[in-house]
Amino acid sequence: MATQINPPRGMRDFLPQEKSKREDLLGKIKKSYLTRGFQEIETPVVEELSRLVSGQGGDNEKLVFKIQKRGEEFDSALSAGNELSDLGLRFDLTMPLTRFYASNHSKLPKVFKAIQTGPVFRAERPQKGRYRQFIQCDIDIIGDASLLAELELLSASLCALEQIGLVGAVIRVNSRKLLTNNISSLGINSEDSLAAMITIDKLDKVGIEGVAEELREKFGTEVADKAKAWLAGLDSSLVPEELQPIWDGMGEKAASLRFDPTLVRGMGYYTGTIFEIEHPGSTGSIGGGGRYDGMIGRHLGSEVPAVGISLGIERIVELVPASPTATKSIVLVFDSGQEAEALEMQGQLIAEGYLTRLELRQKNMKTLLESMFEAGFTSFAFLPTGVTDLRDLDVKPLGN
Amino acid sequence: MATQINPPRGMRDFLPQEKSKREDLLGKIKKSYLTRGFQEIETPVVEELSRLVSGQGGDNEKLVFKIQKRGEEFDSALSAGNELSDLGLRFDLTMPLTRFYASNHSKLPKVFKAIQTGPVFRAERPQKGRYRQFIQCDIDIIGDASLLAELELLSASLCALEQIGLVGAVIRVNSRKLLTNNISSLGINSEDSLAAMITIDKLDKVGIEGVAEELREKFGTEVADKAKAWLAGLDSSLVPEELQPIWDGMGEKAASLRFDPTLVRGMGYYTGTIFEIEHPGSTGSIGGGGRYDGMIGRHLGSEVPAVGISLGIERIVELVPASPTATKSIVLVFDSGQEAEALEMQGQLIAEGYLTRLELRQKNMKTLLESMFEAGFTSFAFLPTGVTDLRDLDVKPLGN
Repeated sequence: MATQINPPRGMRDFLPQEKSKREDLLGKIKKSYLTRGFQEIETPVVEELSRLVSGQGGDNEKLVFKIQKRGEEFDSALSAGNELSDLGLRFDLTMPLTRFYASNHSKLPKVFKAIQTGPVFRAERPQKGRYRQFIQCDIDIIGDASLLAELELLSASLCALEQIGLVGAVIRVNSRKLLTNNISSLGINSEDSLAAMITIDKLDKVGIEGVAEELREKFGTEVADKAKAWLAGLDSSLVPEELQPIWDGMGEKAASLRFDPTLVRGMGYYTGTIFEIEHPGSTGSIGGGGRYDGMIGRHLGSEVPAVGISLGIERIVELVPASPTATKSIVLVFDSGQEAEALEMQGQLIAEGYLTRLELRQKNMKTLLESMFEAGFTSFAFLPTGVTDLRDLDVKPLGN
Repeated sequence: MATQINPPRGMRDFLPQEKSKREDLLGKIKKSYLTRGFQEIETPVVEELSRLVSGQGGDNEKLVFKIQKRGEEFDSALSAGNELSDLGLRFDLTMPLTRFYASNHSKLPKVFKAIQTGPVFRAERPQKGRYRQFIQCDIDIIGDASLLAELELLSASLCALEQIGLVGAVIRVNSRKLLTNNISSLGINSEDSLAAMITIDKLDKVGIEGVAEELREKFGTEVADKAKAWLAGLDSSLVPEELQPIWDGMGEKAASLRFDPTLVRGMGYYTGTIFEIEHPGSTGSIGGGGRYDGMIGRHLGSEVPAVGISLGIERIVELVPASPTATKSIVLVFDSGQEAEALEMQGQLIAEGYLTRLELRQKNMKTLLESMFEAGFTSFAFLPTGVTDLRDLDVKPLGN
């Protein structure tokens, strides 16, 4: 017996039906973004290791797959006890985008509206629903400091989700500035702000008492008591003035927005509005993002405003059923010696809009046709000798 | 001044226009293959290092980017002086396909017609036209030992190239079996056959005398003299009997085939027919492939026939001009405060088939509109206050 052969741990093969569904969904989402004037770019899967672990990527930096130096460089690093890797696999698309912008900004429009999609990699301990290679699909607007950028991203995301049949998505919105101000008014120093946010982020799981307890341990009773009062008094129906233009600009679509004063988002680089997309069919979020005005400046040396939203394609693929294919399809069965006729007839069928698969006649036609039905084909025909016109084909439906 | 920031050495960013062209071409090629009943699959970018360097990949095995082990596994490998990497980036799509087939064959049709496209990686010394990350696009037929598989691949490849406007491609065809027999009849032992092939492969560059000289050095004067007579007597217009069914089956398309009795192809794994696709517009080949009946058996333990063709997308992209976009496109310019109206109007324009980009009115409209024209937009309109029907928009052409 052959041994079990699998893809690397935490990584996946996609069989034809799953791959077809993924391509279909991703294609529709990208097309929706393209119609709104976003432009697709591509960056390498690999980036310089030093950029991947420069402190902007939070915990993801610990999950980088490192690529070993080669040749003499490796040998001398090994003997000197230096870093053995020079490159790494990207863990998201935001770091590569900011590097891309720094490399190419002179060739890009002043306000650059980018689409980027592709595989990202994280060396996580494999577990259900967590993968070591997975797809992200990001849109970002670089060079626009106004809330118009947020409006376009939110509107485009909702439209893209509608295009794949996902209605009922809700986007929670908050502002890191508001959150930072609130945390400051609890009596927490600005250098502890991110630590406090990480505690507040657990509100959904541990409740107000749980958050207060953790804040007490970290910052003392006074802070905890103030936090308790703040959290208990929150009213998410009162959209704060600085976020109101988003609600106004979205028009009818504002019905899909929820102000969430305790939304945090994990990454340290956010500077303004933050978003998280939810759907009743999924327990986790199906997307998220925010404004990161300081990040491009780190590469470029001059400040450039930026804001982005990333869709969680892996979760979205599980939420949406595969759409039935609209293509006519046929299995054309022929005998040995009819190869040239079969190829010629295949050309005619394709010109008529048929997805056409050639199959040599077999002893067990029943098994063959059943497997073609399972593969999604809807009809079949035998190629009679000497037939050159597809109107002379006897096309029959495939099925049980 | 900011320092120069680039993608990793030998790797590339794709700006919107180049990315759009690449997506367009690859999409058309994939669609052409899909209409012929090929099915798309995906495998991870990463494979087990041990499989990538198992001896089937020829010189490419020396070019693997190795991924370092992590955590304790790395520490103990380092202190024990063992191999520090456990994974690697794939250098082609054939090895991953054979691994995929071995992993998933029970869920696949008996004759599996696969499409696979995606990035592959080679740590080559960077030089013009050679990249460390590039795209391949392969079709393979697994489970069919007959020449029908070759026929389908050759026919599908020519059709795909026609779909992207690349007519005039020529496919050189040879058989490794024929070649091996010919080499054997020169008096060369079978274990030296591949070495002899590597010499014969230089025929285009060094001519008959050059090949004979190198064979003399390797195998003596008698072999060299026989080789000279053989090479001088070759007639590529005489298609050998065992390849004739391909010419017969291709019908009119056989005009694009050339029998080439000295075609070699570098890889050791080929067992039967081999192909190389050429185009008058390109000095190198734009694709190639062949039959590799032994390779899947290495993973699976039982023999499975297989044959494939890989298109050299990077060269093809350079051969084909970008097709003019058929989409109507418009830049909708609005004033601050009109955000909701602009988003609403954008929705209407998209529904009418316009690719629609929103732009806030600026002081220097000339510069903005010029940059939008450069980005490929063909028209623009200002959004008058209170206009809610797109028929009231004054749409003007963009241009110089």
